[in-house]
Order: sequence, then structure tokens, then C-alpha cells
Amino acid sequence: MRASRYLIATQKETPNDAVVISHQLMLRAGMIRRLASGLYTWLPTGLRVLRKVERIVREEMDRAGALEVLMPVVQPAELWEESGRWQQYGPELLRIEDRHQNPFCLGPTHEEVITDLIRNEINSYKQLPANFYQVQTKFRDEIRPRFGVMRAREFTMKDAYSFHVDADSLQETYDVMHDAYCRIFNRIGLDYRPVLADTGSIGGSSSHEFHVLAQSGEDDIAFSSESRYAANVELAEAVAPAGERPAPSKEMQEVHTPGQKTIADVSAFLQSDPAHSVKTLIVLGEAEEEEKAPLVALVLRGDHELNELKAEKLEGIASPLEFAPEARIAEELGCGIGSLGPVGLKIETIVDRAAAHLADFICGANKDDYHLTGVNWSRDAEPGRVADLRNVVAGDPSPDGQGTLEIKRGIEVGHIFQLGDKYSRAMNATVLDENGKEQVMAMGCYGIGVSRIVAAAIEQNHDDSGIIWPEAIAPFQLAIVPINMHKSDLVREKCEHLYEALRAEGVDVLLMDEPKARLGAMLADVELMGIPHRIVVGDRGLERGVVEYKGRRDAESQDFAESQLLEILLEKLAG
Amino acid sequence: MRASRYLIATQKETPNDAVVISHQLMLRAGMIRRLASGLYTWLPTGLRVLRKVERIVREEMDRAGALEVLMPVVQPAELWEESGRWQQYGPELLRIEDRHQNPFCLGPTHEEVITDLIRNEINSYKQLPANFYQVQTKFRDEIRPRFGVMRAREFTMKDAYSFHVDADSLQETYDVMHDAYCRIFNRIGLDYRPVLADTGSIGGSSSHEFHVLAQSGEDDIAFSSESRYAANVELAEAVAPAGERPAPSKEMQEVHTPGQKTIADVSAFLQSDPAHSVKTLIVLGEAEEEEKAPLVALVLRGDHELNELKAEKLEGIASPLEFAPEARIAEELGCGIGSLGPVGLKIETIVDRAAAHLADFICGANKDDYHLTGVNWSRDAEPGRVADLRNVVAGDPSPDGQGTLEIKRGIEVGHIFQLGDKYSRAMNATVLDENGKEQVMAMGCYGIGVSRIVAAAIEQNHDDSGIIWPEAIAPFQLAIVPINMHKSDLVREKCEHLYEALRAEGVDVLLMDEPKARLGAMLADVELMGIPHRIVVGDRGLERGVVEYKGRRDAESQDFAESQLLEILLEKLAG
Repeated sequence: MRASRYLIATQKETPNDAVVISHQLMLRAGMIRRLASGLYTWLPTGLRVLRKVERIVREEMDRAGALEVLMPVVQPAELWEESGRWQQYGPELLRIEDRHQNPFCLGPTHEEVITDLIRNEINSYKQLPANFYQVQTKFRDEIRPRFGVMRAREFTMKDAYSFHVDADSLQETYDVMHDAYCRIFNRIGLDYRPVLADTGSIGGSSSHEFHVLAQSGEDDIAFSSESRYAANVELAEAVAPAGERPAPSKEMQEVHTPGQKTIADVSAFLQSDPAHSVKTLIVLGEAEEEEKAPLVALVLRGDHELNELKAEKLEGIASPLEFAPEARIAEELGCGIGSLGPVGLKIETIVDRAAAHLADFICGANKDDYHLTGVNWSRDAEPGRVADLRNVVAGDPSPDGQGTLEIKRGIEVGHIFQLGDKYSRAMNATVLDENGKEQVMAMGCYGIGVSRIVAAAIEQNHDDSGIIWPEAIAPFQLAIVPINMHKSDLVREKCEHLYEALRAEGVDVLLMDEPKARLGAMLADVELMGIPHRIVVGDRGLERGVVEYKGRRDAESQDFAESQLLEILLEKLAG
Repeated sequence: MRASRYLIATQKETPNDAVVISHQLMLRAGMIRRLASGLYTWLPTGLRVLRKVERIVREEMDRAGALEVLMPVVQPAELWEESGRWQQYGPELLRIEDRHQNPFCLGPTHEEVITDLIRNEINSYKQLPANFYQVQTKFRDEIRPRFGVMRAREFTMKDAYSFHVDADSLQETYDVMHDAYCRIFNRIGLDYRPVLADTGSIGGSSSHEFHVLAQSGEDDIAFSSESRYAANVELAEAVAPAGERPAPSKEMQEVHTPGQKTIADVSAFLQSDPAHSVKTLIVLGEAEEEEKAPLVALVLRGDHELNELKAEKLEGIASPLEFAPEARIAEELGCGIGSLGPVGLKIETIVDRAAAHLADFICGANKDDYHLTGVNWSRDAEPGRVADLRNVVAGDPSPDGQGTLEIKRGIEVGHIFQLGDKYSRAMNATVLDENGKEQVMAMGCYGIGVSRIVAAAIEQNHDDSGIIWPEAIAPFQLAIVPINMHKSDLVREKCEHLYEALRAEGVDVLLMDEPKARLGAMLADVELMGIPHRIVVGDRGLERGVVEYKGRRDAESQDFAESQLLEILLEKLAG
């Protein structure tokens, strides 16, 4: 591509409304422009990157045996009513009416449409397993679209859906897709992790997320220091501390703690470590029909955080999790929430594994302005049910028994699910099995945020000068920067010759041929745009038979003999 | 692709709701499925064709110097209010509201979005001309979606928009795009015509449509028998008959024609040729402010049809064209609409060129149940304004003076416009010209109905057995049909070997490897799907060292020596 026939559209200023670096750099590098909240136009440079990501995704989906289809953006409400999601899905589902007042939605995902298609097209186990994907525009009416294309309302997604006669076949395809996802992110050149994940609102039985590691990520990921274990912190198991609980060594004592309500306050007041205290949280249990929901106490170590997802999955706990109103606590338990504790508590108590391992700990006395010290389980309080209630923290043992956990932030760019029969049962998607018996199909679904990958790659690869593209998805592989091309016939001739020679080799090359462009401005644009390789061609170098080369990550430029330039560049580009 | 891992999804029955052959065959060949009225899912076979069309379109757009971008499907109302189209556009524009009750629409076209982009990105004549395209999902809420993807509500379109400092530059790019469109349709392999077209509701100054010729087309196209002239009948000029008007040879006479009102009735009653009579249509003229619109008479030859587009463009005629109510005609002109004529008519009269060339003609007497014969212009009636008011008919002279017109039906698959400053003026899209003066940009726009091309190609290329794809867009180039592959190791081995060898050469090949599939059923599928080349591999042929080959358009199959098969096939595929 010639810059003179291209829209470079770089900007020097950092846009005010862009918070994260990828959003800033995508605007500054001329990749996207905002049309309205959460709606972006992809300019030529951005689209070149998006298309390269799409191509890698398609190649790996084809290789994994998935068949490409294309389903409509606009979907009829009736299918969503069949699956139950017309009611369940929040306002992120943009519901619309056509000119005849028939209800439709803009597809945020396509489980219903594909399930409807497959129940009509596939009726025998012999046609299974089947796996379909599309690369399609999705719409989710986010309440606060932000971070540019990272959390846009309209975005490009690859979604795939597989259908199976049984769970084993689903597991097989799930594994194939897991591998395909790894190949995709490896080929793109991202530092990513597949992590165990919660199945969330889509439902189903098993799930992995694929996270690009980056400081700006919205998710916390726990990794083992020694194994491949990785899980979203939401899901990572906090294992019980090793060994026996220490024996009691102190007597239980009541101490006056006037006005001290938080763990931090009490620990400071008593000059103790928060890890030697417990906190007691009161939530609602599951209500029997027509009865008021009972109160349940959750006891955690003072320095730990409740994991609400874990708690609400426990038997006897209301889901979604709901904290008890303070007034009800005061009335039924006789004290404020800053003075609760497990000793003598008359309601069901569930104790986190780490809290259950403490001896001689501090807790509230169930009496305002009083705490207990030297408390011990069994002797002073019944530990009752012990469960995993908390978020893991750095240094926790890895649940697979190998090493300890580290916690990093990640950007979710892919998510695969074993849906089981959630949709196929609701929509009666069946096949005849080997015995001629009707069988509800098992389903998997597999998403990749294609446009989000572009932003995530930048979050992971940039410096003060701009983007540093992984080679596989760079908008251009190489830039030719001439010095005074409009004045020097020799420079023009060499640049044109090299440009054509590289194009003939299939290289995506950008020739900076704008007449009168200043060298500094051109180099700044090439760096901002993140082009992995660039050369500078000028009369002074040519006199010495050299051109200047610099890789985007290189600290220093180097001179290459002009006579061998093409070979050297092709070698560099081949990696 | 292996059939055993593919979704062929062919159907024997012709679907009830499909009227045109392309819709029937796309359903039967497993290319599309209906999701809701005017909404279709593209199955793998259909999508393969669609993608091949897209690729050709992209390659030619790139070659023409257009830059690919991607604009959102969902567009904010405010831009449409700026251009005035929020009010003007009918209910085909699907207006929606997001969760915050902000108004948006689903884009039926993107003039507003691109103009907004360009007015922000381009500010100097030095950056012009600029030309941008996208291949994107469009939505038009058709009142009666029909003919499958031919007139769907959601469809794939390539739309391009060019920007210029002046009309000459626009004309230059317009010509380049005209050529690119010809290359696209030539490469796809369609019998098409670029035709002069009306600029319609998008507005602007000059326009061509590209029509695929097919019986089922919705448009009438007029062609010269001897030149390259072609125009939509809506627009084709009906030139004045050659030579002088014949001199009067009869006296005007009033004849009693009781109950005879139509041209056909009167001609039969008087035993005359409709071409020797005129019909008089009364329409509304342009109203002065606050006044009632005056009546205007349009006079055409009895065998000709009024062209409403031509009429409403005339000075003094209301646009859109409106016929006068019968009651008003009776009151002001004193007779019914079946007895009108130009003799003694007291309102403005516009006479079509052909009608103005008649002598001794028949017309209504402006008195119920009476007509006049032997009427002559000037002597009996003032011809007043003469204008082109009618649709051309087969046999009319070509407006370019070369040959006569033929009329064929066409399917519009492309449309290019010189928009001039319609959008750029309304939206204040300006650049600084050479003299530093603000200049409203001139614009062109260029559309191709990508998904419609798929249907149009079928309308033009099919037989009783199914689709006959042009080679460039066939879902597969070649099918290998084995006889008893599951029983014969030799057949399996030969088929597998050939399959891999063809794939290695980059051929899109379909191996019909479903175990136990019957030969007849496989051949029927291959023909229905329109695969251009197929071979049958069986033990009996292999014993003789041959395989059977048949091109999709061939009447008979032929045997090829198995030893030379690959070379022969590659030669055939190369065309």
C-alpha cells in the first residue's frame, strides 16, 4: 500500500475520553473512530488487523472440523421465548419491533437460532457430532460501554456451536476446540492462559475462559507457580490448610472493644493480626414455601474475602446471594454486624476451610462493643459445616497440589462451554439414537471476541511510542520510509523497486510516499501504528550502499547492505 | 471437504413458499434456510458461494483503489436528521431505541456515517480523491420480503463512497468504478448489462445500474440492437418519430360511441388501430401557494404507456405524480375519463412525441359517449408542449441513433451514483481547496448486492436438475463420487489419493464419502448443488483403467484414463 493512496489518520493528541491504553492507541494510530457510545467504525488500518485475526480464527476453526455458516443479526423473539431467555436476559438484549410490530432482537449470541436450525436439519445420531461456527456482528446493549472496542455494544465475534448424541462426544469436541483456541492465540502471538471458569448465565456444566494477561484486565486469574493450573479467581478452589488444626493454648476471654467494628479496627485495637481473627457474615438461607428465609452465618478468616459465587452454590443458601438486613440481625441475633461471632450463635453456621483451621482466634461476642479472644473450635464454638467460601489469594497452595498460586489480571478473549442439554431440551432438539429412540442432543458453545483480541493485543504489546504488533496481525509487516523521495530520483527508484519486489513476495508493505512528508513525522507514524519492521532509504546511506533497518522492538537501528536488502528483509519477515 | 463431515442438507421437495427458481434451488441445494420473513441463515454450501463473490468484489475494489473500512450496522438517528433522511425515509428504515431511549436505526445504507467520518478525517483537497468501501450486513424492513435472498430484509451489500474536490474528479472515479463493476461481473461469469438509470430516492445527478439478464427480473431494460446503449425502461428516452408529421387527409367528425370508454373498446368499435388514436390522462399540476392544483392533460398514443417518472419531472407537474379525481374531471371538463380528448380542452396540455406525430387520429370528444375521428394537430387542436411522456417499446429507435430497442428483464445487482453534493452539503462536509477556500465535497456512491448476486446467478444458470454454477463462484469446483467406497478398498484408495492430490493443488473438491450412499442420490445432489465438474470412480471402470467424467453442462459423460486423470482435471479446472 502507498501512503499517498491510504488513510493513515494518526493523531498526536491522546483523546480525552479514552481511559485504557489500547483505546487511546487505536484512536491515535487511526484504527477506529467513535460513531456513538459503544459503536465504532473500523478505519483501514484497524480493519487490516481485524481481518488478520479473523483469518487465523477461520483457519483454525476449519482445521478443527467446524463448518462456517452465517446466521442473521436480527432474530425473532419466538425462539428466545422457547428457550426462556426472552424473559431472563436483561436489558443488554436489545429488543426491537419491525414495521408490522413483530418482536425481534439484535443477536447478542446465537444459541437459539442454531438450535432451531439443527433440530430441523439433523435427525439421526449418524449426522453427529456436528460443529458450526460463524464470524458475525453481535450487539449487546451494555449499560456503560467503555474501553473502545474492548467493551463495545456492536462487535465482531466468532461463535461456534456443537451438537452431540452424548456427553462423551461433547467432551471430545470440547477438547478439540480447546486445542484450536490454544493454536489461535499462539498463532496470533499472545501471552494468554486457558483458565477454569464459571458457566455464568449461559449455563451448562463445564467451561474454560481464555485470558490475555494484561494489567488492565477486568478479571483476576489464579495460576499455579509450578503446574498448568489456572482458574478465574471466581472459581479457583481455596484448599484447606495443610496439617492438623493447632491445639488450643489460651483461655477464651471477653474484652471490651468500644466502637471497634471492622476487622481492621479490632485488630489494631487488640494489636493482633487480622489473620488470627474471624469475621461473621449473615446471609439469607433458602426459604421453605411461604416461610421467611432463615438466617445463615458465614465465617471467614479476617484477612479473607467472601466469594459470593461459591457461597450461593452451597445447599441451603439463597441464590443469588443476599445479605441479611441489619435490622433483622439486630432483632434476631441481638447485636450489630460489627460484633457478630460464631460462639453461641443460634443459627446455621458455615465456616470457611481456613477459618476452621484457626486456634486461639478473635471474634465478635454477639454483644455490642465486645469481642472474644482465645476462641477455639469445638471447645468454644461448633464449627458446623466447613466449606470453601473465599477467594484465593496469592501464596495459597494450588488446588492441584503443585506449587502455590499467583494472581494476575486478564482480559477474557475466549470462552468455551459444555452447555449440556440446556437449550436442546428447552427447544426439543432431538435425534434418533442407535436404537431408534429419541435423544435430546448435548451441546457445546465456543466464543471468541474477535474485535476484543485486537484491543487485548495492544494492552499486552505497546510502549511509549505506540503499538508493537505481533507479526501475525500487524496491519503492515514492513514500512519503507524514504528521505526526500520527491527530490531524489535515486531514492524514489530504490524505494519503488523494493516496494514492488516485496509485494511480489506477498509482503504487506507500506510505502511512505507522501510528497514532502517529514522524516520524523513518518517515523513517529510507523512506530505509533506498530509496524514490526521499517527501513529508511536516503541518499546518504545509498552513497555508502546501505539502508537503515529497525525492528519495532529494537533499541537501535542497524545498516544493511543495499545489495542484500531483499534477502535480509524476507528472512526477518519469515521470523 | 468430505461429505461425511459436511452438511449437504439437500431436499427433494420444492418448498411451497418459494416462487422463483433461485429461491427454490437455494433451499433445495441446502444453501439457505429461512429464520423469519426476509431473514435467512446461510448454510455451509451457500456461504461458500457468498464468500467467493465477496472475494472477487474485494479484489476488484482494492484494485480500483478503494480502501476497505467497516461501519456499524446500528446508526445514531442524529446523523440521519442532519441529512434529512430520518423524516424522508419510509418504514423500510427500521428505527429502534436503545436501553436509554436514544433513537438509532439499522443501516439500510451508510451515506450519513461515511460523510460524518470523512468530514472529520479529511480537510484538504490534497487528501482527495478518496474512496472507501465495506462489505457489510444491511437491513431494510421490506413490506413484503420475497424471492428468498433476492429481496430479503437482512442482506450482504458492498457499498462504496467516494469524495472529490470537483465534478471532474468524481467523474474520473465514477468511470474507474464502472470498469471495476464490469470486471466483477465478468469474473463471476454473469450475462449482465450496465444500464442508464434513474437516481431515485438517493438523489444525485448521474447513475448506472448493473443488471443480470433473467426472465424473472423485476426490471425492464431497453437495449439497442446495434450499439452498447442500454437503459432502464424507466429512463430510456422515447425519441420523436423520424420525418415530418403526415399532412391531414380527413375531416374531423364526431361519432357516437355509446358505452365505449377504453382505447381497446373504442378501437374495436370503430375498427381502427389503437396506434391511430390518442388517450388523454388528467393529472395535477404544481399548485401555487394556497391555491388548488390546476389540472394538466397528458396525451399519448393509444398503444403507448405513460412513464410516470418522466411525467413528474416535467415543469408544472406535481411530483410525485397524482391523477386527478374523476369527480373533479367531470365537474371542470364536463365528461367522464373515457371520453377525454385534446380538442377544445381548456387546460394545459402536454403531448407525447409519438402522439404529436399522428395525423387523422381518433380521440375523445370531451362529451360522454362521443369520440372524434380524423383529428389533426394545429388544424383541430393545439399540440401545446410536446415532451417525452411514455415508456419505450420494443422496436423503438435507439436514442443514440443506432439500431432499434429490444426489451429484456433484468435483476439489479449493482448501482452506481454521482451524488454530487446532496449529502456533503446537508452535512457540511468541506475541504480547503488550492486557494484555501472552503469547498463542499462532491460524492459518489457505489453499491453491489452481494447476496443478491448469488440468487441472480442461479436465475441465469439452472436446468431441471438444479443449479449450474459459473466456475468462479461454485461452492465446490469438483465432486468425486465413489461407487461402493465402503466395500471396495481399491475405490477408496483411488478416491482418497485423488482427493488429497486435488486439495494439494488448491482445488475446492467435495469427496462424497458417506458410507452406503446410493450412486443415484449422490449424483442428484452433485447436480442439484451445481458443482461444475464431477467424476465417478468404480471398480468396473478401474478394471478398464478409466473413470467417468461429466461437466455440469455436458449432455453425456466421458471416460478418462485413470493414469492421466489429475492432469486432465487440472486442465479442465483451469478453464
